[in-house]
Amino acid sequence: MNTQASITPDQHQPIILTGDRATGQLHLGHYVGSLQQRVQLQHQYQQNILVADMQGLTDNGHNPQKVADNILNVVADYLAVGIDPKLTTICLQSAIPALAELTMYYSNVVSIARLERNPTVKSEIQSKAFGRSIPAGFLTYPISQAADITAFRASLIPVGDDQLPMLEQTNEIVRKINTIAGKNILVECQPLLSKVARLPSTDGKNKMSKSMGNTITLGADSKTISQAVKSMYTDPTHLRVEDPGCVEGNIVFTYLDAFHPDGAYIETLKQQYRQGGLGDGTTKKILEQCLQDLISPIRKRRADYLNNKDYLIEVLKSGTEHANQQTQQVLTDIKTAFGLNLF
Amino acid sequence: MNTQASITPDQHQPIILTGDRATGQLHLGHYVGSLQQRVQLQHQYQQNILVADMQGLTDNGHNPQKVADNILNVVADYLAVGIDPKLTTICLQSAIPALAELTMYYSNVVSIARLERNPTVKSEIQSKAFGRSIPAGFLTYPISQAADITAFRASLIPVGDDQLPMLEQTNEIVRKINTIAGKNILVECQPLLSKVARLPSTDGKNKMSKSMGNTITLGADSKTISQAVKSMYTDPTHLRVEDPGCVEGNIVFTYLDAFHPDGAYIETLKQQYRQGGLGDGTTKKILEQCLQDLISPIRKRRADYLNNKDYLIEVLKSGTEHANQQTQQVLTDIKTAFGLNLF
Repeated sequence: MNTQASITPDQHQPIILTGDRATGQLHLGHYVGSLQQRVQLQHQYQQNILVADMQGLTDNGHNPQKVADNILNVVADYLAVGIDPKLTTICLQSAIPALAELTMYYSNVVSIARLERNPTVKSEIQSKAFGRSIPAGFLTYPISQAADITAFRASLIPVGDDQLPMLEQTNEIVRKINTIAGKNILVECQPLLSKVARLPSTDGKNKMSKSMGNTITLGADSKTISQAVKSMYTDPTHLRVEDPGCVEGNIVFTYLDAFHPDGAYIETLKQQYRQGGLGDGTTKKILEQCLQDLISPIRKRRADYLNNKDYLIEVLKSGTEHANQQTQQVLTDIKTAFGLNLF
Repeated sequence: MNTQASITPDQHQPIILTGDRATGQLHLGHYVGSLQQRVQLQHQYQQNILVADMQGLTDNGHNPQKVADNILNVVADYLAVGIDPKLTTICLQSAIPALAELTMYYSNVVSIARLERNPTVKSEIQSKAFGRSIPAGFLTYPISQAADITAFRASLIPVGDDQLPMLEQTNEIVRKINTIAGKNILVECQPLLSKVARLPSTDGKNKMSKSMGNTITLGADSKTISQAVKSMYTDPTHLRVEDPGCVEGNIVFTYLDAFHPDGAYIETLKQQYRQGGLGDGTTKKILEQCLQDLISPIRKRRADYLNNKDYLIEVLKSGTEHANQQTQQVLTDIKTAFGLNLF
């Protein structure tokens, strides 16, 4: 089987790099925030998706099994939503040595102070309460991310605006390495900003996380979806059906906006809810049906793929081989420019 | 040509890892401090010598040419002093991907605070006046060094006592990774402490460095050796030949002790110098002759090797292939234990 058969490296097509940390199953937040978009992008660009197990280890260094267990889950999620390995290179970070090697070279042109100033890393350090015990790999992961992006010569990176400082850091490294090399080996990248607002968690308060139980994964069973919708945060002042209710900040309507195929219908529901006379039981029933319809076929395909792990491994292996060819070339270019390519 | 023909990986022979940063020509300090010892060790141990170009880049990130230019110089120095590629694996750090990959894994179990506490790194940071602009690669190089040592399963590391904190750091990583892996994949290492005191610079004040002009390289020409000895720091209170002189801290005597083959003769000279009646001109002449005799054949062999760069590259390539086999095995063992060895 050659899952890469139709990927032709067209030099005129811009290259995209995107990916996910392999630390859990993907959920509805990933679906609206990036997966849907990737299904479209694969037709217009050379799209590479990195299963970022090494990055997953930067804050799970003592629990590699958590990362290992999720690699094939993530690949199954990709295929289940319609990412096509014939159009998209799906590859495994830990199996691409050039990424680690480039990280080593880049580490010498980035100061610790610069890393500590990175706003994205700063806020992540705070949220993880690492303090001074922050692992070296975590503080330096923007360097590793720059290695990922540049190794694929990616010029377009789909991100949320909270990730813009990471791309700035990458482009700083690109300019430094090109200056040292005396030629433009590396390519600067630009964000491809998502138009979709970040999906809130079902409790409307905390960041989505499996441990908080406030997320709906792409493999969620029917009962879990039902319970998740029932427990969703709505408008706490909307006590009786006949009371006027607030749509803003009402998670049920946020999800309806994000997932219901009929936008006009949702607008009439909103109007009714604002005026009074529409109960949360009804809106939740509509949302639940919509999410059951969305997730049911994904869950089915996902389960089928996970029943055929050999196929998932083959997809990942084939994509990784393709990625190794691309990334080795960038590494070789840098080593040659640095005078280190002796044999 | 197979320069590795006689290296048989005897499991019962302890493994040594040693090496040098490829940032300059090796000098007399290296000769008495480590090179002489390595010529002996290669008969008793499985000795690996790493030409540490990646480590050289950690504080030369903006000047890779300096490192690149010195790789073959260092290999020529090794061969010229008698290190035999049939007995010792001479290999190039940047051409061994497993070292970078292991560094990435280890980075997740070492905190930034722990690195900043490392006394060796601390004093090096001070001496280099990096301040907050210390490159990430420099602060984290003890992790990379741990990768080097463990990738070769080296249990004996020839070091000066200033390097002991680096080995402590390595063994901490070894224990952490073995705990996470659930089995003893990595081997703890022990120092093989050099019995020879560190050779002072010819000016007796500063650390030896090419830019200070206070060192004698193994390729130094006859005139340079002569000038270096003439400018050597002796006893500033020893003004006239008939005055009693001090031997302690007198660089000429320190070098005579280190390099003159006839220890008994040097003892009589010391006695005479202490009593008065022996001039610095005479002691310097004796030292110069001794150093000319030592360096002349090394310089000759060194130049011959450098005239045959293809041979030097072949030695390095062959040793690196051998090293890649060894180090890939350790990497595979860790990836397998971590559940990341999918294909």
